[in-house]
Amino acid sequence: MAPSTPRVVVGIDVKKRPWEQLVPLHNRWHPDIPPVADVKEGELVRVEMVDWTGGRVGDNNSAEDIKSLDLTITHYLSGPLRVLDTDGKLAQPGDLLAVEICNLGPLPGDEWGYTGTFDRENGGGFLTDHFPCATKAIWYFEGIYAYSPNIPGVRFPGLTHPGIIGTAPSHDLLNIWNERERKLAETDTGSLKLCEVVHQRPLASLPTPKNCLLGKIKEGSPEWQKMANEAARTIPGRENGGNCDIKNLSRGSKVYLPVFVEGANLSTGDMHFSQGDGEVSFCGAIEMSGFLELKCEIIRGGMKEYLTPMGPTPLHVNPIFEIGPVEPRFSEWLVFEGISVDEAGQQHYLDATVAYKRAVLNAIDYLSSFGYSKEQAYILLSCCPCEGRISGIVDSPNAVATLAIPTAIFDQDIRPKTGKVPKGPKIQRSPDVLKCTYDGKLPVTKNLGGTQT
Amino acid sequence: MAPSTPRVVVGIDVKKRPWEQLVPLHNRWHPDIPPVADVKEGELVRVEMVDWTGGRVGDNNSAEDIKSLDLTITHYLSGPLRVLDTDGKLAQPGDLLAVEICNLGPLPGDEWGYTGTFDRENGGGFLTDHFPCATKAIWYFEGIYAYSPNIPGVRFPGLTHPGIIGTAPSHDLLNIWNERERKLAETDTGSLKLCEVVHQRPLASLPTPKNCLLGKIKEGSPEWQKMANEAARTIPGRENGGNCDIKNLSRGSKVYLPVFVEGANLSTGDMHFSQGDGEVSFCGAIEMSGFLELKCEIIRGGMKEYLTPMGPTPLHVNPIFEIGPVEPRFSEWLVFEGISVDEAGQQHYLDATVAYKRAVLNAIDYLSSFGYSKEQAYILLSCCPCEGRISGIVDSPNAVATLAIPTAIFDQDIRPKTGKVPKGPKIQRSPDVLKCTYDGKLPVTKNLGGTQT
Amino acid sequence: MAPSTPRVVVGIDVKKRPWEQLVPLHNRWHPDIPPVADVKEGELVRVEMVDWTGGRVGDNNSAEDIKSLDLTITHYLSGPLRVLDTDGKLAQPGDLLAVEICNLGPLPGDEWGYTGTFDRENGGGFLTDHFPCATKAIWYFEGIYAYSPNIPGVRFPGLTHPGIIGTAPSHDLLNIWNERERKLAETDTGSLKLCEVVHQRPLASLPTPKNCLLGKIKEGSPEWQKMANEAARTIPGRENGGNCDIKNLSRGSKVYLPVFVEGANLSTGDMHFSQGDGEVSFCGAIEMSGFLELKCEIIRGGMKEYLTPMGPTPLHVNPIFEIGPVEPRFSEWLVFEGISVDEAGQQHYLDATVAYKRAVLNAIDYLSSFGYSKEQAYILLSCCPCEGRISGIVDSPNAVATLAIPTAIFDQDIRPKTGKVPKGPKIQRSPDVLKCTYDGKLPVTKNLGGTQT
Amino acid sequence: MAPSTPRVVVGIDVKKRPWEQLVPLHNRWHPDIPPVADVKEGELVRVEMVDWTGGRVGDNNSAEDIKSLDLTITHYLSGPLRVLDTDGKLAQPGDLLAVEICNLGPLPGDEWGYTGTFDRENGGGFLTDHFPCATKAIWYFEGIYAYSPNIPGVRFPGLTHPGIIGTAPSHDLLNIWNERERKLAETDTGSLKLCEVVHQRPLASLPTPKNCLLGKIKEGSPEWQKMANEAARTIPGRENGGNCDIKNLSRGSKVYLPVFVEGANLSTGDMHFSQGDGEVSFCGAIEMSGFLELKCEIIRGGMKEYLTPMGPTPLHVNPIFEIGPVEPRFSEWLVFEGISVDEAGQQHYLDATVAYKRAVLNAIDYLSSFGYSKEQAYILLSCCPCEGRISGIVDSPNAVATLAIPTAIFDQDIRPKTGKVPKGPKIQRSPDVLKCTYDGKLPVTKNLGGTQT
Repeated sequence: MAPSTPRVVVGIDVKKRPWEQLVPLHNRWHPDIPPVADVKEGELVRVEMVDWTGGRVGDNNSAEDIKSLDLTITHYLSGPLRVLDTDGKLAQPGDLLAVEICNLGPLPGDEWGYTGTFDRENGGGFLTDHFPCATKAIWYFEGIYAYSPNIPGVRFPGLTHPGIIGTAPSHDLLNIWNERERKLAETDTGSLKLCEVVHQRPLASLPTPKNCLLGKIKEGSPEWQKMANEAARTIPGRENGGNCDIKNLSRGSKVYLPVFVEGANLSTGDMHFSQGDGEVSFCGAIEMSGFLELKCEIIRGGMKEYLTPMGPTPLHVNPIFEIGPVEPRFSEWLVFEGISVDEAGQQHYLDATVAYKRAVLNAIDYLSSFGYSKEQAYILLSCCPCEGRISGIVDSPNAVATLAIPTAIFDQDIRPKTGKVPKGPKIQRSPDVLKCTYDGKLPVTKNLGGTQT
Repeated sequence: MAPSTPRVVVGIDVKKRPWEQLVPLHNRWHPDIPPVADVKEGELVRVEMVDWTGGRVGDNNSAEDIKSLDLTITHYLSGPLRVLDTDGKLAQPGDLLAVEICNLGPLPGDEWGYTGTFDRENGGGFLTDHFPCATKAIWYFEGIYAYSPNIPGVRFPGLTHPGIIGTAPSHDLLNIWNERERKLAETDTGSLKLCEVVHQRPLASLPTPKNCLLGKIKEGSPEWQKMANEAARTIPGRENGGNCDIKNLSRGSKVYLPVFVEGANLSTGDMHFSQGDGEVSFCGAIEMSGFLELKCEIIRGGMKEYLTPMGPTPLHVNPIFEIGPVEPRFSEWLVFEGISVDEAGQQHYLDATVAYKRAVLNAIDYLSSFGYSKEQAYILLSCCPCEGRISGIVDSPNAVATLAIPTAIFDQDIRPKTGKVPKGPKIQRSPDVLKCTYDGKLPVTKNLGGTQT
Repeated sequence: MAPSTPRVVVGIDVKKRPWEQLVPLHNRWHPDIPPVADVKEGELVRVEMVDWTGGRVGDNNSAEDIKSLDLTITHYLSGPLRVLDTDGKLAQPGDLLAVEICNLGPLPGDEWGYTGTFDRENGGGFLTDHFPCATKAIWYFEGIYAYSPNIPGVRFPGLTHPGIIGTAPSHDLLNIWNERERKLAETDTGSLKLCEVVHQRPLASLPTPKNCLLGKIKEGSPEWQKMANEAARTIPGRENGGNCDIKNLSRGSKVYLPVFVEGANLSTGDMHFSQGDGEVSFCGAIEMSGFLELKCEIIRGGMKEYLTPMGPTPLHVNPIFEIGPVEPRFSEWLVFEGISVDEAGQQHYLDATVAYKRAVLNAIDYLSSFGYSKEQAYILLSCCPCEGRISGIVDSPNAVATLAIPTAIFDQDIRPKTGKVPKGPKIQRSPDVLKCTYDGKLPVTKNLGGTQT
Repeated sequence: MAPSTPRVVVGIDVKKRPWEQLVPLHNRWHPDIPPVADVKEGELVRVEMVDWTGGRVGDNNSAEDIKSLDLTITHYLSGPLRVLDTDGKLAQPGDLLAVEICNLGPLPGDEWGYTGTFDRENGGGFLTDHFPCATKAIWYFEGIYAYSPNIPGVRFPGLTHPGIIGTAPSHDLLNIWNERERKLAETDTGSLKLCEVVHQRPLASLPTPKNCLLGKIKEGSPEWQKMANEAARTIPGRENGGNCDIKNLSRGSKVYLPVFVEGANLSTGDMHFSQGDGEVSFCGAIEMSGFLELKCEIIRGGMKEYLTPMGPTPLHVNPIFEIGPVEPRFSEWLVFEGISVDEAGQQHYLDATVAYKRAVLNAIDYLSSFGYSKEQAYILLSCCPCEGRISGIVDSPNAVATLAIPTAIFDQDIRPKTGKVPKGPKIQRSPDVLKCTYDGKLPVTKNLGGTQT
């Protein structure tokens, strides 16, 4: 007889606040956050997690909670887990930690999620210059399927994955992060061309003690004070993995994470029921609480063996991922293209970000002609299993990016119609997403050619 | 009895030069290039095409032809085809032209192709600061499969597609192109942040009479003089489709192209036996001559119905694509990640281009540890059916881009190995790609952490 | 706010025996088994179920429990559920009941299963003349994956499905079943040609009060006496669905079941973590307890609309199934073929059963040359996601049947090797399956050409 | 420079009759049919082939050619090819011949095919007791797609494959075939239970000199006389492969064929543009002329290494097939089920043939409610890429067989509709298939429950 049920190493009570959980959570990256559990190579363990905001966004009829969300609270992570081999020897810096995602899903009794766009003054998103208001859509789950009362006529199976999975950085790596991001944050945005096109703010989220949660480290203690001032924020993906938001990192996948500290100190969180490539609306996946059943293996010396630094130090590496055979597959895709010419008609140089923005805008406007509001389309493209591709990156001056949408997720045929066939029902898809006003002062980019948002 | 064999509207004799073909070719976009054939809605026609260089790159043992290639000659296109409906009425500006790709492939007797990287002083490529030399790999086809004597141990089925398919621009659209690209070309590269990271040159390829081929328009005639000075180069994808390099645009796909001139004037060329997302090495697909069997339909008024302009004029639109169920499918993928931190360790702001560059560099170095030279890996990732994704585009400051490689194309298991299993044969993959020297003066970016190129 | 968590309509305590469960189970088909719950159209409900034997087969080191299993106990089913529309009106005979399988899996804390072959004197199996002994393999689950200590070197994701799902028969239908099966059972096997080749016994399992469980009907009561003598056994699939063993009936699938009695009276059970087409070893899936989250819809008058009787009465219909996009997909398959010539060399006439038997025997012997015992291979082909196809059924006298095995489930390359490449490690796959002796007297068919079993 | 264009070893002129071709064809299996070409291991060669009837069925408006077809003419095969290794040594009996299918398709200029059902007195088919008349549908090809003027509203990509591929039998194997088939043919059909349900005739097609074509062997010569009287007919698949009709044997597949005579003597023919599992209407694929590009490898001693005899002699083996990643993939399938109860309501014992017959009948009647005639549906299910599965083969007394139809091939949604959504347009799909009268005397099984054929 073998142990088959996974051992719960981090359990969550969804009725409690993040800081009240039995096993303490954390919302920063720091080498000195103490591990909450030991995990053996080959052992199947279960990690539960709160949603990324720790319950601050509700299953209700208002987007105000999104509008006023304090982003210094995020992301609440479960862990760190300290990993040992079967002889009891800890994972060591320089090793590679192979994490297999054996199963995952929503927490029983909490089968719902949300997708939102932030207010332009508070986080924004990829298209915040077009969509400055906070909005929200609620999603309910029927087994593997999600549907939203706020976006009628759409239903799809979730390609569920953890938005964040990563190892703890070493002090050296943490310093590299803090230095390079501070340098960017201090840049005059006028000299950053991309800021003219992608108006999301801020440039970078630097360490702050505000709302900092460091696991077992007692808030306010001297240790906490020191750590909170240097602990990296969780928003961007970095060398340790972290917020990589790879939508296919689902059941049967493997992540090969570099180990920077003794024990590896693996943390995970930010479970997504589903996400589109790019997660464009920022609060953009179907965000939920959840569980993750995983298995670890240590590849001794694997960093040197498998990863090549791309930068000035041996720490400038990235994880590797292995995507398995178990995911929803779609046969037909409708593909929208963007080139690196912005909405003002200005030519940019091989800029995949600008090209992708135009592809997403094209797709939103297209969908809006089938009865969806543009806000519905924006949120949908953020969280449904659509694919964002860099199709051409060398044909100066235009990068070509594409956004591919699986046609099977709609209850109507959204393809262009040839011949005399009418276009379709053009059903008004109501009710709409939940929506707040925009009270800020930043100029809003109108979609010049289309209907006005 | 129905007509079943497709009518050949453009035939190619591969032993002849591009300007000697019976049906004249063209290598520029211009509204006044005369149509070479009329095509009826619903009719299955066959268009043959030379390879993009018109035969200047040979099936031989040297990369010198790549190094010295004059890029003003490209791309040789077949067409334009004038499209009529079943009543004989021409496609009109404002219509949408639906083109179904029913079949395609290499030309019988010419079943080979090539992939190359240009010299840094002559075209370059996505990683030209790392790989400044011209290189070349020859590919031979065995039915649907391609293999290269220059990259042993790799074989894959082609997801064959035309790199270029597009309608003729109107004069207005042509003016927009020329103006915005000239403006960029005149920009001081010092003010373009991306140029520090993506060193490909030139910024844009402006109209030039040099090597200009305009179909039936006689070279040197006054008409030719005028047109050659304003006809758009074919390198970048634009509003008319053109060089979109969408690798999945294969058998069973459909393109919905905006119509800007009477008759639509459809042209196509640059057949690729296979290409990876991004086509990173620039001469980056498996380039070949080929045939395309296609069928057109006209959606009257479709531009207004289905496309929303993303820019100051109603001409700022992009085509839509429909990808069908018929393509090689792979179960397992190995995924490399990049974030928008460059090789010097500098932090960029949500820059998907920088992130993708790092992902590709990561993948190249990884593969090089399995016996491939870095040049082999660079060319392979440019032309094999790998996927380039924009995974996260909102988590400031890091864009996350990923490059996914299907593991089944290798003759060895390239996954990281856990446990005590050895990594694999580490076979030296020789012979190597064909390679020239770099004689230029531009500084070469060394891959700091890896082996030197 | 919407109800999202599925309502549990049948809960199971795996520590209790089938007849001790809070909501009573049943192991026969009969119109008068009282419903245990009402279910509304569109409502997401959760049905839990014991394994098909109700816990009589254990996670232990012996196959004796398989050898001595009394088949009159099977299959324990959960239900019946009475289905109403949103107006509270019951499903009616003549309607079609659409059941969507939203989610399913093992019961938490019971993540294991087993596959077995029965003794030739007690149930047998498809190849019982070759494999007369009872055997057993235990499977443990790691999330979506299963592995067996008894069949090392194999691991695969489960295509989990309920082996049995069906509506209650009407009295008329029950009579039809009992009559036709009794007629067969009374046939002299000498006149049934197939019995010479497929030696499984008995011919049919007729109603018997022995071990009969009828839900809320009290055992021994006069009502029970009457019903037990006529209630149909659950072994074969029939017009009501029942034991259809369709391996792809997994997440996202739909079943359209004919309704024969008021309320439809839906029952389900016999959860399979995974099964191969044919379920050849009889106890042949990975058998387990489990849960099923489902949603019902009523198509009024749907039987007449969508089903055509194939037989003398309007009751001679079969359900329809819809397979969804969410299942493990494999790229490469190794396919074994059989023709309708039996092991003695005798020619049969278009007999797909004989052809499939030969295909399975071919596959077993093939796998045995890679280090697996024949018993391991037999059990593996019974429960792994292999496909059994009727490839040709018209080319007299040979039916051609094929068995396709996904190559990715093995830890070694099982394809035939061309050139000088050695065949592979030929690792002895031990330990073997658990095995009993065969003490019966029926002659055993030796595999004439291969190694002896 | 490498040879890339495949060498044509058998060329076909479709305007000529089978016996007029430059390279002689054959329509029997015999060890002494002389090879027409030598093929080296690893060499890419092209084999062209006539359609299976050698042009006797025309692209016209009548099914009379199907009705009167003399089946002794079939199947015209191309070959035999004698296979040598790179040292010039011939393949030997006991070797395994690996044949890779690199590419295939229709012959240029002959892009059409047909599907038919034979008259009940002349060949019949799987459902000949329901459909006794000869019928025919013509198919035209648009690249990878086929459509039929006789079955409007359906279009699908072809999974093109050779119906027949096989090696020459040895004299010993030929004797085994002739003996066992003669024995069956001499059986009183009254003692063959399956004949009551599957009324196709004859039981077996024995050797006959009538219309016998033996390649280079001159018709009427003494050698021809002797061979013609013993050469095996090509209808059934056998130990040498032959008419295996495996629909997935398309681009990128491999066949591992046993070698029985020196040189292997590989023949192929009966190209199918597309076929459903079972090829139920007998003339049931989309039959066409075509080309096949293939590559051979010899696995020395491979029969012993990889194949286990399933019968009294070492010759009782079957080929192995490897299915590759390149084929049309469909996401959604509608599945029809059959159990081994026949149309008269009689119970059969685990008979997969009877079960599959019922599944096909169910599917035909279902489709007929969407506007297709039953004859259209019968032909469609015979040639479209539908899957026939043996789902359960152990649950006595019912075998469960299923037929899965990809829903994407229809121009309407054929799924059952829940809720208030109407079923669909119920368009009359006319014109119908071409149809002859049935003038025979055999009783026709009416579909008792459905509309009458």
